[in-house]
Amino acid sequence: MLYLYSPEQQDHYHRLLQEALPDWSVASWPQEVNTEAVTHVVTWKPPVNFFSRFPNLQVIFTLGAGVDKFLQRDDIPDHVTIIRLTDAGMAQQMTEYALYGLLHYQRQMDIYRRQQQAGIWQPQPTRLARNTRVTVLGLGQLGMQVAQNLAQLGYPVSGWSRQPRTIDNVRCVHGCAALDDLLKETDVLFSVLPSTTETQHLLNAQRLALLPKDAALINAGRGTLIDQDALLDLLNQQHLRFVLLDVFAEEPLPATHSFWQHPSVLITPHVAADTIPEEAVAQIAANMQALASGHPVQGMVDRHRGY
Amino acid sequence: MLYLYSPEQQDHYHRLLQEALPDWSVASWPQEVNTEAVTHVVTWKPPVNFFSRFPNLQVIFTLGAGVDKFLQRDDIPDHVTIIRLTDAGMAQQMTEYALYGLLHYQRQMDIYRRQQQAGIWQPQPTRLARNTRVTVLGLGQLGMQVAQNLAQLGYPVSGWSRQPRTIDNVRCVHGCAALDDLLKETDVLFSVLPSTTETQHLLNAQRLALLPKDAALINAGRGTLIDQDALLDLLNQQHLRFVLLDVFAEEPLPATHSFWQHPSVLITPHVAADTIPEEAVAQIAANMQALASGHPVQGMVDRHRGY
Ligand SMILES: NC(=O)c1ccc[n+]([C@@H]2O[C@H](COP(=O)([O-])OP(=O)(O)OC[C@H]3O[C@@H](n4cnc5c(N)ncnc54)[C@H](OP(=O)(O)O)[C@@H]3O)[C@@H](O)[C@H]2O)c1
Ligand SMILES: NC(=O)c1ccc[n+]([C@@H]2O[C@H](COP(=O)([O-])OP(=O)(O)OC[C@H]3O[C@@H](n4cnc5c(N)ncnc54)[C@H](OP(=O)(O)O)[C@@H]3O)[C@@H](O)[C@H]2O)c1
Repeated sequence: MLYLYSPEQQDHYHRLLQEALPDWSVASWPQEVNTEAVTHVVTWKPPVNFFSRFPNLQVIFTLGAGVDKFLQRDDIPDHVTIIRLTDAGMAQQMTEYALYGLLHYQRQMDIYRRQQQAGIWQPQPTRLARNTRVTVLGLGQLGMQVAQNLAQLGYPVSGWSRQPRTIDNVRCVHGCAALDDLLKETDVLFSVLPSTTETQHLLNAQRLALLPKDAALINAGRGTLIDQDALLDLLNQQHLRFVLLDVFAEEPLPATHSFWQHPSVLITPHVAADTIPEEAVAQIAANMQALASGHPVQGMVDRHRGY
Repeated sequence: MLYLYSPEQQDHYHRLLQEALPDWSVASWPQEVNTEAVTHVVTWKPPVNFFSRFPNLQVIFTLGAGVDKFLQRDDIPDHVTIIRLTDAGMAQQMTEYALYGLLHYQRQMDIYRRQQQAGIWQPQPTRLARNTRVTVLGLGQLGMQVAQNLAQLGYPVSGWSRQPRTIDNVRCVHGCAALDDLLKETDVLFSVLPSTTETQHLLNAQRLALLPKDAALINAGRGTLIDQDALLDLLNQQHLRFVLLDVFAEEPLPATHSFWQHPSVLITPHVAADTIPEEAVAQIAANMQALASGHPVQGMVDRHRGY
C-alpha cells in the first residue's frame, strides 16, 4: 500500500497518484489504514515519528529535491530507500529565480529603486551581461540547468561541485580548494547547494569577504550554507551590494531578524522552485515501475553523502 | 567629411570612427570645420538647428534606434537620408529588460516586496511561465528578438506589428483591429513600438482597460504610446497590478509626477537598451561601405512611415 502525507494539495496528489498507479491501493492521511500494509510513502514535511508507524516501510518518495530534513530524522531505518524529486519542473523555476536576482543586480534595479524613492532620474553606467561574471554553486539536477541557461543568455558562467562536471560553455571547477579563487572572480554568486555537514556555513565570514566589493549573492539552496551574521556584517560594511535570499537558517525567518528591513536584502519565503504535482507524480510513478522491474531509479538519495 | 556630435562618450566615438573609416576625415563637435565639406553626420540628440549648418549634408547616422525626435525637426531637408541603428547589441538588453519586468510580475516579487516591508512570510500560489501570456507590441529589430527569446524561455508569446510577420513559436497578429482581442488575452504587455502619429496614445483608457484585471505593463518603446493619466487611473482602481516604465511622455519624468511614488510603478530613466559604441560604429562603417558600393543599407528610415 502507498501512503500519502502532504499538507499541501493532499487531495490533488491523492487523485493523481491513484490515476498514475491504478494497481496500487493509495491511502492518505488522516485515513485509518493497516499500517503493516504500507510499504511506500509519498510525503513532504511529515510530523515527528511519522515513519515509526510503518514497520514494513521500504521506500520514501519525497515531494521535494532537498532531503536534509529527512536525513536528520531518527524514525527512518537504514534499510529504507529515500528517493527525491529530480528537476520535475523545478530547474526552470530555479533559472527564473536566479535570473531575476541577476538582472536586478546587473540592470541596477536596486539603484533605480532607491533613485525612484528619492525622485532622482539618473541613468547608471551600462553593464552588459557579458561583463557580469556568474558563479553557480551546485551543479546537480537544478544547478546544472541554471548554469547552462545563464550561459546561453550571454553571461560568463562558472560552476562548482564536489566531483568534476562538464557543462557546455560553463567553466566547471570542483572541490573546496578551488572555491576561494572562484569567489574572487565572481560578480554574482548563486547557490543551489544542498544542506549537508560539508556545506554548513561554507560561506563563512572569510569566504564571503573574498567576493569582490559590490558583488551580489543569491541563495536558493538551503539557509545553513551561509553564516548569516557574517553576511549582515558584510552588507553593513557595504562590501556586498545586494543579496536575494529564499532560504534561511530558521524558516520562517524570525520576525525580529535584521534581514527583513535591510535595504540591501530581498527576501522571498522559500518559493524559488515549487513542486509541480503532475510532474512529481509522473516521476514517482516512473520510479515505482523502475523499482518493480529492477531498472535504475532517478533521484536515489545517498544517505552517507547527505544528498 | 564625417562630423560627429555625441555629448555621450564623444572622444570614444571619435576614435572608433576614425579607426573604422581610415579613409575619411572625421571631425567632432565643437571642432571648427569647413561646414560645406560635411556630407555625413553621426549623432544623437543634436541641438536645435544643428543640421542647418551643413549645406551639403547627405546622410545622418543616428546613434540610437528610435528616430521620432529626428523626424520632428525642421532642419533636415527631405533629400537627406537618415539611417538608424538596428539591434547593435540592443536586442539582448531589451530582452533583459522585458524579462526583468516579466519575472518581477510572474514570480510575484512585487507582492514579496510588500510582504517584506510588513515582515510577512507568506508563499504566494506558484505561477509558471507557461501560464503567463506575454504580448510584445512591435516586432522589428528589437521586438522580434525579445518575442523569440521569451518564447524560448517557455512563455506563451504573442506579437503585434503593422505588417504581417512570422516568428517561430510566436503567435503573430497585425493591424489595429486585431489589437483589442489580443489585449484581452494578455497577462504581461511589453511594448517596444516606435513613436509615430499612429502609435501616439495607442494605449488609451479604453484599450488599457481591455487588459485582464491584475495584468502588468512594461513600456520600453516610447512614452507617447500611453495615455499616462488613463494608466494612473487604472492603477489606482487596481485594475493593473504592476507597471515598469522606462520611457515617458516627458523625459526626465517631471519631479512632481504621481508615477514616482506610486506603489505599483517601477521607473527606470530611459536605460532599457543602451547603444554600445563598438557595435554602433561597426554598423555605421558597414553602412558607409554599402552606400559607397550601392549595396543595401541596414536601418534606412522611412520618413513617411515614421520609423
Ligand atoms: N529554494 C527552493 O525552493 C528549493 C527548491 C528545490 C531545491 N532546493 C535546494 O536545491 C538543492 C539542490 O537540488 P538538486 O536537485 O540540484 O540536487 P543534486 O542534484 O543532488 O545536486 C547537488 C549539487 O551540489 C553539489 N554539492 C553537494 N555537496 C557539495 C560540496 N560539499 N561541495 C561542492 N559541491 C557539492 C553536488 O556535487 P556533485 O555534482 O559533485 O555531486 C551537486 O552538483 C536541494 O538539495 C535543495 O536544498 C531549493
Ligand atoms: N528605451 C530604450 O532604451 C530604447 C532603446 C532602443 C529603442 N527604443 C525604442 O524601440 C523602438 C523599436 O526599435 P526597433 O529597432 O525594433 O524598430 P523597428 O525595427 O523599426 O521596428 C518597429 C516595429 O514596430 C511596428 N510598428 C510600427 N508602427 C506600428 C503600428 N502603427 N502598428 C503596429 N505596429 C507598428 C513595426 O511594424 P512592421 O514590422 O509592420 O514594420 C515594427 O515591427 C524604437 O523606435 C525606439 O523608440 C527604446
